[in-house]
Amino acid sequence: MSIAETGEFGLIARIVARLGSGPASLLGPGDDAAVVAAPDKRIVASTDVLVEGRHFRRDWSSAGDVGRRAAAANLADIAAMGATPTALLVALCVPSDLDVTWAEELAEGLSEEAARTGATVVGGDMSSSPTLTIAVTALGDLGGRAPVVRSGAQPGDVVALAGRTGFAAAGYTVLSRGFRTPKVLVEAYRKPAVPYAEGPAAAAAGATSMIDVSDGLLQDLGHVAAASVVGIDIRRDAFEVPAQMRDAASALGVDPYVWLLAGGDDHALAATFPSAASLPPAWRVIGSVHEGTGVTVDRKPWQGGTGWDHFR
Amino acid sequence: MSIAETGEFGLIARIVARLGSGPASLLGPGDDAAVVAAPDKRIVASTDVLVEGRHFRRDWSSAGDVGRRAAAANLADIAAMGATPTALLVALCVPSDLDVTWAEELAEGLSEEAARTGATVVGGDMSSSPTLTIAVTALGDLGGRAPVVRSGAQPGDVVALAGRTGFAAAGYTVLSRGFRTPKVLVEAYRKPAVPYAEGPAAAAAGATSMIDVSDGLLQDLGHVAAASVVGIDIRRDAFEVPAQMRDAASALGVDPYVWLLAGGDDHALAATFPSAASLPPAWRVIGSVHEGTGVTVDRKPWQGGTGWDHFR
Repeated sequence: MSIAETGEFGLIARIVARLGSGPASLLGPGDDAAVVAAPDKRIVASTDVLVEGRHFRRDWSSAGDVGRRAAAANLADIAAMGATPTALLVALCVPSDLDVTWAEELAEGLSEEAARTGATVVGGDMSSSPTLTIAVTALGDLGGRAPVVRSGAQPGDVVALAGRTGFAAAGYTVLSRGFRTPKVLVEAYRKPAVPYAEGPAAAAAGATSMIDVSDGLLQDLGHVAAASVVGIDIRRDAFEVPAQMRDAASALGVDPYVWLLAGGDDHALAATFPSAASLPPAWRVIGSVHEGTGVTVDRKPWQGGTGWDHFR
Repeated sequence: MSIAETGEFGLIARIVARLGSGPASLLGPGDDAAVVAAPDKRIVASTDVLVEGRHFRRDWSSAGDVGRRAAAANLADIAAMGATPTALLVALCVPSDLDVTWAEELAEGLSEEAARTGATVVGGDMSSSPTLTIAVTALGDLGGRAPVVRSGAQPGDVVALAGRTGFAAAGYTVLSRGFRTPKVLVEAYRKPAVPYAEGPAAAAAGATSMIDVSDGLLQDLGHVAAASVVGIDIRRDAFEVPAQMRDAASALGVDPYVWLLAGGDDHALAATFPSAASLPPAWRVIGSVHEGTGVTVDRKPWQGGTGWDHFR
């Protein structure tokens, strides 16, 4: 059944039926606005938009996977401030001939990924559009901690990473060359495995700066370096190339370090910590902060590409 | 200059330079997420999306006016809960060949409308897209009051309205017939005059339910009637047809009451109050709540159309 047949309110009812409820949702979908608990008296808020053809393809990802990725991109931004996600709002623009099932499965994917952090979908809006577009806003609570911003890195700090990099980019390359395996890479592109809890854990451990790795590690650390007015050096030998990534890179003629250091969409968290800090177990040191500017790899400029600009 | 020339980060820098700062913005654009004050320990949140060709036309509205309308649609939802807006987040999808000036003026319009309520634009995201799309999320603070929901109307309550109806719909009809005057109607379509402060005022005066009139008074009161499980009757003689609206209706062969009772986009606020309540001065009684279902005009079903469904 198409959305033209169910109508706007019919589709909204079907979607709302697929959303769960959570502890921070004081008033969920169905009114002019939602009401969300903000016990900290401050709310962390971030918006990310996914556009078909730019950020996802319906022949590469199921509706549920697109929903999970749309949620993950936003929830990771909340975690990267050291906060715990509480709620999502979703603006969905869909072609009138879209099958209702697709929208329902998208809602399930959004809801499932949110549930991994304790958050729920509390509201949204819907319109027809020639271009399938999903704009998600995530809210989160700081639990009394200071937000961990990009500008706090200090010379002498260590740079550390929680979560994996390169997997989603490798999966994207595999799919773009027409392959469907190795499954671990393709699934990494389809379903990000974001270490959400490591954001608040890093904040509690004294992280001086933090960022969600969405565009590529070197590009995103470049934002930290610029905001903190420091230089950052990454050690290439801190990254081991996993066997399946090595095989795929070899078969496709790609340098796997381009995936590891410049590939986006895995939503790892990168942070800086004072050198004396005791890092939570999921974090591993990958480099250091020094006086200067920019990001280097083994003290040399990186030549392999640095993430992407959506307009170029 | 096109956005393809400035690039994503160049455009973001130009837009951020046009946004003001406000008291609730504890951390504005430029990090993974914004931080917004939530002194009430609850946050009110709403999302609305505008799609070119569906919700606006670039030949009918300036970029600044589109920005104002995108902000107003969201800010009115916050006011309709009895809350005061604090912040906006904006996801902007634009064609790569869009002139940068258009995006800058859009940002100024968003910022100006937000400033009318004391709110500021605290964050956002941007992507290229074949379809110009603006998704806005508004946040607000309840200031210790209970949220005014749609489900609280009681038989015996009065129905009251703050703000005007029919002006934007009349302006839309005028524009769609190829005219540019009367100016008061066309400008009402382009620049909504939303009585934001009347939302918290109604809450303080004991409103039992409230809604933002975005799709048309009768359709939106239909949501209140359904959620409250009551009937609502509107008195036609509570609406006077303004002279310029009467003239335009006559020239275009339209019943002006279709504009007044079923026209959307003015973002008036409609609320129910106990009959003994003392209404704030900007509110006028237009009907009453009774046991039953649905919305009637002078106790009869309305025959003139009831707002619109974006998919039909």
